[in-house]
Amino acid sequence: MQVAEAYAELIRRTKETALLGSCAGVLGWDERVNLPPAGGEFRGEQMALIARMTHEMSTDPFIGEALSTVEASKPDGDMAVNVRELRRGYDRAVKLPKALVEELARVTIRAQQAWQEARQADDFAGFQPWLEKVVTLKREEAQAVGYKEHPYNALLDEYEPGTTAADVKQIFAGLTKELVPLIEAIKNSPRRPKTEILHREYPVDLQKIFGTAAAAAIGFDFGAGRLDTTTHPFCSGIGPGDCRITTRYNPKFFNESFFGILHEAGHGIYEQGLDPDHFGTPPGAFCSLGIHESQSRLWENQVGRGPAFWQHFLPRARQVFLTALRDVSFDDFYFAINDVKPSFIRVESDEATYNLHIILRFELELDLLAGTLKPGDLPAAWNEKFEKMFHLKVPDNRQGCLQDIHWSMGGLGYFPTYTLGNLYAAQLMEQARKDLGDLDADFTRGEFSRLKGWLNVNVHKPGRRYRAGELCERITGQPLSHAPLIRYLRDKYAPLYGC
Amino acid sequence: MQVAEAYAELIRRTKETALLGSCAGVLGWDERVNLPPAGGEFRGEQMALIARMTHEMSTDPFIGEALSTVEASKPDGDMAVNVRELRRGYDRAVKLPKALVEELARVTIRAQQAWQEARQADDFAGFQPWLEKVVTLKREEAQAVGYKEHPYNALLDEYEPGTTAADVKQIFAGLTKELVPLIEAIKNSPRRPKTEILHREYPVDLQKIFGTAAAAAIGFDFGAGRLDTTTHPFCSGIGPGDCRITTRYNPKFFNESFFGILHEAGHGIYEQGLDPDHFGTPPGAFCSLGIHESQSRLWENQVGRGPAFWQHFLPRARQVFLTALRDVSFDDFYFAINDVKPSFIRVESDEATYNLHIILRFELELDLLAGTLKPGDLPAAWNEKFEKMFHLKVPDNRQGCLQDIHWSMGGLGYFPTYTLGNLYAAQLMEQARKDLGDLDADFTRGEFSRLKGWLNVNVHKPGRRYRAGELCERITGQPLSHAPLIRYLRDKYAPLYGC
Repeated sequence: MQVAEAYAELIRRTKETALLGSCAGVLGWDERVNLPPAGGEFRGEQMALIARMTHEMSTDPFIGEALSTVEASKPDGDMAVNVRELRRGYDRAVKLPKALVEELARVTIRAQQAWQEARQADDFAGFQPWLEKVVTLKREEAQAVGYKEHPYNALLDEYEPGTTAADVKQIFAGLTKELVPLIEAIKNSPRRPKTEILHREYPVDLQKIFGTAAAAAIGFDFGAGRLDTTTHPFCSGIGPGDCRITTRYNPKFFNESFFGILHEAGHGIYEQGLDPDHFGTPPGAFCSLGIHESQSRLWENQVGRGPAFWQHFLPRARQVFLTALRDVSFDDFYFAINDVKPSFIRVESDEATYNLHIILRFELELDLLAGTLKPGDLPAAWNEKFEKMFHLKVPDNRQGCLQDIHWSMGGLGYFPTYTLGNLYAAQLMEQARKDLGDLDADFTRGEFSRLKGWLNVNVHKPGRRYRAGELCERITGQPLSHAPLIRYLRDKYAPLYGC
Repeated sequence: MQVAEAYAELIRRTKETALLGSCAGVLGWDERVNLPPAGGEFRGEQMALIARMTHEMSTDPFIGEALSTVEASKPDGDMAVNVRELRRGYDRAVKLPKALVEELARVTIRAQQAWQEARQADDFAGFQPWLEKVVTLKREEAQAVGYKEHPYNALLDEYEPGTTAADVKQIFAGLTKELVPLIEAIKNSPRRPKTEILHREYPVDLQKIFGTAAAAAIGFDFGAGRLDTTTHPFCSGIGPGDCRITTRYNPKFFNESFFGILHEAGHGIYEQGLDPDHFGTPPGAFCSLGIHESQSRLWENQVGRGPAFWQHFLPRARQVFLTALRDVSFDDFYFAINDVKPSFIRVESDEATYNLHIILRFELELDLLAGTLKPGDLPAAWNEKFEKMFHLKVPDNRQGCLQDIHWSMGGLGYFPTYTLGNLYAAQLMEQARKDLGDLDADFTRGEFSRLKGWLNVNVHKPGRRYRAGELCERITGQPLSHAPLIRYLRDKYAPLYGC
């Protein structure tokens, strides 16, 4: 096989597999947005067929042979990127025994049901056998994939290529050291925002209009995307020209849909910024889940919870939510959306304490995968760790170790990407402010295109050409650090809480 | 190859191909209901990939070999049905040269654009070269597939398996002979309904609620289906438990959405009545387009334009459309929805004259395919024939031969299925009334389940086990005839028009 020929066919097949996979993207979106109740079983068969076909296509021995041929030619540029990333995916896929993949699919479907019931009934014992099965299977997966140092690395690598548990440990340690005293100082401040403001009447129709306008303003392209309503919000980048985000509305809580929409729109702007010419191949793919999350957090928090953003949007919000916001001052509103308060539920927590929720889960996951923590001992371990970190006693497992769906889905190794997202967001935003000058002046005018353009060029267009850490260093000149996030949080909270 | 083994693998592959094809069903529905404008090109690539894959799967030489093996064993029952129908599809697919299929796909996409522009500008000359290409390609298709007597048969057979142009000619001749004098008599009647009633204010929100309630009442299962809004209404049966219908709303015209919804719900009830255990194979597939259309016309017209239906629904409509219907009597409303008036546009025409529109198109199609009518002579031929049949002078080609999309899509041979649907609907309904006794008493009470159950058993569950004509004869004891439709129309119009 000639190198050029092997490479062309490799890329053709990779794109075709991605194209077929993108059909499952439409089916998955439709399942969550439109599917009639009776259609669930059939949709499962459709999705399973496409999953099987794409798996067969991407593990075809031809892929391995073509990769070897191209690798031997020592390619550079995008060819090298494609070979590196496709090799990574191919090796991982062929190393996993089919029986294990199928068992994982079967077990995690039933484990999710068991988790749902267990959470509702606050019955950890009902979930324990399923958690045991999932942990056992994920440890087998790590063995099959292979790893250095810790089995966690084999799982983390799927979400955050090239990042290891040791990397995460180190950066989380630095973060914890500075974050815990900051949260403590805020806790000890006598100042408290009037959060009642956010729990007034916010009619759903108006939230929809206001949230859509904000998503469009920051740069989500509704000519190439949609916003719909689902129980669990998500972003689905189907392919070039088609990216869909969802949210849920709470008529008695402003934050739920509004910051949710900014968050998903941030993911969406990333997807819309990927290079369509490279669709289906690494140069046209998102870099890592951490970088993906950095884009959602950047728009949601760095921009969307900032004072300049609300200089522009609060007067507009007052015109839309007449009764709720008529008498609310800028200072009161801004303080309310930046309330910091240790609490039990991760998804309801604030920008600062959120990261402690992640660190707790990361540490428990490490022990679960190492086998040093038995799934049956999880509630005790969770509660002890939680009390140490948050100075709060967990009242029940619903508000403790049963709150998240991730482990029942087999998503061990996923949680750290959320805080990596916060860290990358802060470091990228610091750099954008350096490069672009007075961004707050833009935001005050409702102008976000310079920031979006900067992200397009620096973060989105490179795709998966660089690993997350490498991308960060290329853009900011520094490896990922906890310092920018801490600086950002301190700068924000010092004037609010006088700490 | 053992027969049992060959048959099992044949069915497995057939079902798998249908399952993949059903994914394109979701993509196609989504394209028309949800797709962001910029996503069109990518959606085209997704659909083309699935079309190519399903084509490859269904023309795999294994299918032909397995069919031969099973055929040699002289199977009976469902095995015989499957072999007969799969052979039909396989032979047709392998006979068509790939180049012709691709050329047809290319040409019809561009011909549709040309048609849209030509219709808007009333510019037949702009469409003529495309119509010429389409007709030439469809004649080549007929040659490739093979036929007896008339090339039309090769095309009609795709929509109405087993029915020939001669069959259609004969039944249309009988129909014309009785329909033309009936329409003439109605035209000469001095009585005219107050159709202005239907053009009052019908708020879209209320139409949606009322139409949805009616669709549910006649038996469309919203637990296994949806109703959405599109420019061109359609029904998409995606698979077991998932059938989707659409409509469009005109705030100044009651009929457009209401009878449109009944029509699509009729298609939907058929799809929902197919046997899910046989999904993807002939016993679980619809019989023919004519039978499919009979189910939509039966609910739209035979039931939905009948007096008993409105005994139940008019009082409810008055409560919903307060201002429009408050002062409208039953007789005035019922007469208005049964207005008969020769007009230019097929899709806006009434139950009686509709069939003349179809007969005209069928006759022109025969000549186009035989080569005796040149596409360039179409406008003249259309207008001459129209004047003879309708006693109306066609003012322009927009209201003449440019009104329908079908020919630009390559759908020659499709039109007759509409009137076959009307004929089957009348003959089936006559039989249902015989079998079930006083159905009007049911309808007056808003009760449609006995009729729906009868259709489920007699029409839906058999799937494609029998050809349309055979199914009709099994159910009604008679071959398809124009007589029941004529009886139905006479019985309805005699008291209204005094003719």
